[in-house]
Amino acid sequence: MSTTPTNAFEWTELDQRTVDTARVLAMDAVQKVGNGHPGTAMSLAPAAYLIFQRFLRHDPTDPAWVGRDRFVLSPGHTSLTLYTQLYLSGYGLSLDDLKAFRVAGSRTPGHPEHGHTAGVETTTGPLGQGIANAVGMAMAARYERGLFDPEAPAGQSPFDHTIWAIVSDGDLEEGISAEASSLAGHQKLGNLVALYDDNHISIEGDTATAFSEDVLARYEAYGWHVQRVTPKTDGDIDVHALATALEAARAETSRPSIIAMRTIIAWPAPNAQDTAKAHGSALGEAEIAATKKVLGFDPQKTFEVTDEVVNHAREVVQRGKAARAEWEKGFHAWREAAPERAAEFDRITSGELPDGWEKAVPVFPAGKDVATRKASGDTLKALGAVIPELWGGSADLAESNLTTIDEDSSFLPEGNPLKSASPYGRTIHFGIREHAMGSTMNGIALHGNTRVFGGTFLVFSDYMRPAVRLAALMKLPVTYVWTHDSIGLGEDGPTHQPVEHLAALRTIPGLSIVRPADANETAVAWRTIAERHSSHPGPVGLALTRQGVPTFDREVFHSADGVAKGGYVLAEASNFAPKVILIATGSEVQLAVKAREELEADGIPTRVVSMPSIEWFNEQDQAYRDSVLPPNVRARVSVEAGIAQGWRELVGDAGRIISLEHYGASADYKVLFREFGLTADAVANAARASLRTVEAISR
Amino acid sequence: MSTTPTNAFEWTELDQRTVDTARVLAMDAVQKVGNGHPGTAMSLAPAAYLIFQRFLRHDPTDPAWVGRDRFVLSPGHTSLTLYTQLYLSGYGLSLDDLKAFRVAGSRTPGHPEHGHTAGVETTTGPLGQGIANAVGMAMAARYERGLFDPEAPAGQSPFDHTIWAIVSDGDLEEGISAEASSLAGHQKLGNLVALYDDNHISIEGDTATAFSEDVLARYEAYGWHVQRVTPKTDGDIDVHALATALEAARAETSRPSIIAMRTIIAWPAPNAQDTAKAHGSALGEAEIAATKKVLGFDPQKTFEVTDEVVNHAREVVQRGKAARAEWEKGFHAWREAAPERAAEFDRITSGELPDGWEKAVPVFPAGKDVATRKASGDTLKALGAVIPELWGGSADLAESNLTTIDEDSSFLPEGNPLKSASPYGRTIHFGIREHAMGSTMNGIALHGNTRVFGGTFLVFSDYMRPAVRLAALMKLPVTYVWTHDSIGLGEDGPTHQPVEHLAALRTIPGLSIVRPADANETAVAWRTIAERHSSHPGPVGLALTRQGVPTFDREVFHSADGVAKGGYVLAEASNFAPKVILIATGSEVQLAVKAREELEADGIPTRVVSMPSIEWFNEQDQAYRDSVLPPNVRARVSVEAGIAQGWRELVGDAGRIISLEHYGASADYKVLFREFGLTADAVANAARASLRTVEAISR
Repeated sequence: MSTTPTNAFEWTELDQRTVDTARVLAMDAVQKVGNGHPGTAMSLAPAAYLIFQRFLRHDPTDPAWVGRDRFVLSPGHTSLTLYTQLYLSGYGLSLDDLKAFRVAGSRTPGHPEHGHTAGVETTTGPLGQGIANAVGMAMAARYERGLFDPEAPAGQSPFDHTIWAIVSDGDLEEGISAEASSLAGHQKLGNLVALYDDNHISIEGDTATAFSEDVLARYEAYGWHVQRVTPKTDGDIDVHALATALEAARAETSRPSIIAMRTIIAWPAPNAQDTAKAHGSALGEAEIAATKKVLGFDPQKTFEVTDEVVNHAREVVQRGKAARAEWEKGFHAWREAAPERAAEFDRITSGELPDGWEKAVPVFPAGKDVATRKASGDTLKALGAVIPELWGGSADLAESNLTTIDEDSSFLPEGNPLKSASPYGRTIHFGIREHAMGSTMNGIALHGNTRVFGGTFLVFSDYMRPAVRLAALMKLPVTYVWTHDSIGLGEDGPTHQPVEHLAALRTIPGLSIVRPADANETAVAWRTIAERHSSHPGPVGLALTRQGVPTFDREVFHSADGVAKGGYVLAEASNFAPKVILIATGSEVQLAVKAREELEADGIPTRVVSMPSIEWFNEQDQAYRDSVLPPNVRARVSVEAGIAQGWRELVGDAGRIISLEHYGASADYKVLFREFGLTADAVANAARASLRTVEAISR
Repeated sequence: MSTTPTNAFEWTELDQRTVDTARVLAMDAVQKVGNGHPGTAMSLAPAAYLIFQRFLRHDPTDPAWVGRDRFVLSPGHTSLTLYTQLYLSGYGLSLDDLKAFRVAGSRTPGHPEHGHTAGVETTTGPLGQGIANAVGMAMAARYERGLFDPEAPAGQSPFDHTIWAIVSDGDLEEGISAEASSLAGHQKLGNLVALYDDNHISIEGDTATAFSEDVLARYEAYGWHVQRVTPKTDGDIDVHALATALEAARAETSRPSIIAMRTIIAWPAPNAQDTAKAHGSALGEAEIAATKKVLGFDPQKTFEVTDEVVNHAREVVQRGKAARAEWEKGFHAWREAAPERAAEFDRITSGELPDGWEKAVPVFPAGKDVATRKASGDTLKALGAVIPELWGGSADLAESNLTTIDEDSSFLPEGNPLKSASPYGRTIHFGIREHAMGSTMNGIALHGNTRVFGGTFLVFSDYMRPAVRLAALMKLPVTYVWTHDSIGLGEDGPTHQPVEHLAALRTIPGLSIVRPADANETAVAWRTIAERHSSHPGPVGLALTRQGVPTFDREVFHSADGVAKGGYVLAEASNFAPKVILIATGSEVQLAVKAREELEADGIPTRVVSMPSIEWFNEQDQAYRDSVLPPNVRARVSVEAGIAQGWRELVGDAGRIISLEHYGASADYKVLFREFGLTADAVANAARASLRTVEAISR
């Protein structure tokens, strides 16, 4: 569906004037604040206008309309490309907003921020992320269709829509885009159209400095539909040719499309065009005046917009509403025909879970050693059985991460030779592409209406870290299943053993790290993640063991429900008046429990606190936190098989930290724990040392 | 040059027996320890043997020979592919070492570790890194040639050698390999040969789960020379065809080469072959016995190696020595002909710097505001003028990072249209490829004989983090120029403003983070990095400001030489008996200095400690550290425009931390510092609060 009949393509002088107005606004906005990126906002203006006016199915008055197409601006630095179209097409941005570009508190920050400005579908700026987000959105659109309307013929469902992305040289040089584009080709995402701004300029100058590959040949190798659009002789974008290419790209539904569009950066600025300087610097008064003259604008005026231009551009609202009315008909018909699915749709879009879902959360019997990755896998399958919108997979480590939610249902396109393949399959095979996994998960979450998880080894969280940060910045409720969470993975050695990763991930504002101590803590962690999805949206990283860990007897130990509060008293001191507190996470909680026995046998009342999530613990009120870690009990020991950084905050000056300050080694994990001093004895000795410090201070 | 005349290719039964011995050893080694990756070690054995015996120019008795070819095993999990060849070709690994595979303390850890096992040129395991390291080695080989022997005709210099790499599906799915391969094509690295193990299997099964692109078409698009080798009808590698392809690849010196070689994983195991299980699990006694029967080995025996096989394989030592003798002739002739260059070569290979180099380090006059990135750029250019082996560049942010060491000399191949282009150029244009920058820098450092730096924005250290970790693990002396190091970058907003990065990078064992406070600290930081290159090898990350910061008057403040010790007293309390210590880094040191004035005016003796590098400070002895941070002065404040994590360790329970616990925003940086409470007043108030706490405790 389109907002305009495509066989009636017309480009009026008023269209051109509107495009040139966007160019002028971009120049003026950058000049006013004194910094920013005018060049591509100028050169891309016709393309962005064309998409927003003629291709994007959208309703500017309702940026959350579920049936909308999505538009992703991968080169976020050219935010004015987007802001000018949001202004012109009536998303609520005003001319004053454009005048406040890059100013504190404005709705037009330097890079587009999702959740901050209506119509911004994703936060971009870090290059390569946007195109990978778009791939995720396209995947989510297909999965959503599978949930609600799988039988509809192609193009006939209210859940059919197109993901449009503008991408730049920088996006395509980044490895993340290569991973995501290879995945998109493999997945045959026919609902994805990328428009490549092939301007031959990057910050260091001509792209000949660093980028000379044949981009379209590469995309063909990925299995994409490729087209090239050449500019008009004057250097401007040929909108007729571009419209034809965009139409062909949308019509190609068996594979993703990319259109390489040669542009001249900063066109038509007489001197600045085709220069690297125009990428990231204001053009200067003289050059702006000269450009305005070329475009037939008054060089004396700034932010010159006529009512005629705005009114013309805002006609898109009516076209959008018409398209929407058409869509609503189909949507209504679908609701009527499939009331159960409609009810499910209503439940899912409201962020609710099915009645009684929590009964599916497994309870693990005490006594047996169970790896927390195993408990996670079991919990995922159990939750999967009752929550159809829950889907995900692994970056080729499913057998290790235990993330296969349904082994008979793989998210793979028509024609894939695997037996489990289905276009609406539930288990995602991301491939050995952790970064694309992270970023497509962001796209899936941004698209909405599903819940996604993705797994790899904890050590490889480094590979996906830029995407994790953006998930945290955007508060996206995605779940990372990071297994093999310490030297406890053993023989694979230091390249695979995370040592610094728990601390490093805890530095990311808005990311919650959860490292359960046993099988039941793992189950409660998943339950809590499901509960927090709408109430506390944000990414959660589960850190899970490869090795078996004891399943604590909850008749003896306190309930694992405490996980929801981040930290809780797992074992109280025998006299209910602890002299020392042992704080541990994950597989090291068992060391604290053993050390407690030793200390209690010595007559030292000892509390064990399991602290799976420092972030969730810090959300609790002071009274709760003080009840778990009473300020007057200053003899404390933390135990975690990773670096110490951060733990001093919890153990204080008198406390001791049992940690690992160096890389691991290739050996049996039991040897490593022993050799590296991660033992119950070491914990008990540290507790005694901390007690001595406290006594010395008190004396 | 080759270790064998290539027109006399023969493959004897003894060759085949030696290859099959490697297969048997791989199976047995994994079976003995109970875990590991036998499949590809079996299928790749003929290829690895062929390279080690017939193609690699090496002297197994001297793994550090400067004229050697390099061999990189990018899929590190198949470490036995390498270990068996190191054993067979006489690098000093014994059969007992193979029997101790993946056992604590052995020379045969799960993944190959550089510096741990002779002949291992780089630590691999995290996929994609190896091929990117190989690209870096190939770049370094060209730069080295340019330093010492630029006029020699192609193939005629003792500095000509070939970088051989085996790469896997996993390597080629990772974005890092895409970045590095695009860069290699752009750089026309004709000294690089990659052999792609196209086995159609990854951990989740058939690569049809996730990987269906046309890999060779993609590499052609990058500008590589591509070939395909098909297996014999029985499924084994066709060594004749492979040898022909390797020969053609070596002969192609105008661009990098890749050979896609279809293999059957775990060949010829009757049941395990061509299965995902054979990738990462021991085959089991029965399957091993069956395979041994197929290969004509005694199923009852383990680690069966005949003297005949070993003696045959070790003939490579003699061939290697012959090749080396030939090389030494050329090397000697070069020394004779170019005594000054030979002297330079001796200096550089010994890790020394030129006499008097330190005089080049600039001293910046007090009083003027200078961004530390600017001071860094000036220092780099000054050092560059006297240290020819120093080279590097930026991931397309040279104008922002100020990393252009020579603007008239770009490291770019023949035929590149840029005016500054030279195959031996000094300024590297990595492109918008931070990850490949990090990993090629590792390859450059591993190759040796040059000193490399690379720049990007600090926030994008996340993109290169896996490479940074490996640099730290391998103790590689590379320098990261990470500019725009806080919200101080201003209008680009939260996607570009590092908040957690300083803390997150400090978690990496072996990485030093250095955040100088002013221009002179920056100069001393660079001087110290140069001095530590050989004495304390390891990666260093400079965190530098975009914005100007005051250049302290060193007549008033203590000398910036203190930077070499990580932290030092910048300003002593007026009475030499501080009541409170303000500890700050980078651009926040000026806040501490201003707060000190305020506090001193209030009669509170205040010391300011500049702490550019916590890691370097922690290397100092206790006496020095106590002299800077006297244990009895417990009123302390830390100031850093990033998250607090880690600072409690330095300020203690009574201390206060001035930090930033959330993402930044798009605005003028002065507004941000003020709005986010990063002010001299806030520091002074925190100092007073800390003093009150100390008084309360002492009461």
